[in-house]
Amino acid sequence: MNVTRHDDVPFQDVGNGAKRRVLSYTPQLMTVEVAFETGGTGSVHTHPHAQNTYVLSGRFRFVVEDESVEVGPGDTLAFAPGARHGTLCLEAGTLIDVFSPMREDFLK
Amino acid sequence: MNVTRHDDVPFQDVGNGAKRRVLSYTPQLMTVEVAFETGGTGSVHTHPHAQNTYVLSGRFRFVVEDESVEVGPGDTLAFAPGARHGTLCLEAGTLIDVFSPMREDFLK
Repeated sequence: MNVTRHDDVPFQDVGNGAKRRVLSYTPQLMTVEVAFETGGTGSVHTHPHAQNTYVLSGRFRFVVEDESVEVGPGDTLAFAPGARHGTLCLEAGTLIDVFSPMREDFLK
Repeated sequence: MNVTRHDDVPFQDVGNGAKRRVLSYTPQLMTVEVAFETGGTGSVHTHPHAQNTYVLSGRFRFVVEDESVEVGPGDTLAFAPGARHGTLCLEAGTLIDVFSPMREDFLK
């Protein structure tokens, strides 16, 4: 069965005040937990994968294309493939990012 | 921007001690929060969508094909398209289910 125990996956430091755990995935879907310090950032970037983000905790300002929004626990965002997006962590917290297809680049 | 405020989405009772909120989605991905009472169930079923499940809180026993596993907060499961799966809630809690492609049937 494709089950990932949360505590079995060490965090990987991805810089800019963020660290991530790659959790369960299949070719179609990958779940990734990303924990941010206050002031941590996810630089504005694009990728061909569709992405949904669930705010588990903390507060974040997201930019998507030319818009900006502040979100908190339970709020969700959906990014179309290729959409330019980035985030600034306003209060330390964690995002659950899900990608389709899975991110091969996260396994390297 | 495709942002869904958690509290803007009322729960929909889906029976068997479960209720759900359909959160952000695009054609490729849909995020759904499902809250269970202790003893609530998601009957064994299949669908052509790939699914990843993140356990937000509570404890759950999942069956996937012929296997069974107990999971708790932060654990994740991935179900291939067509995999038979179901759950029994052992301690009240919430799952974050993400589907690819999105579930048209959840919008009816």
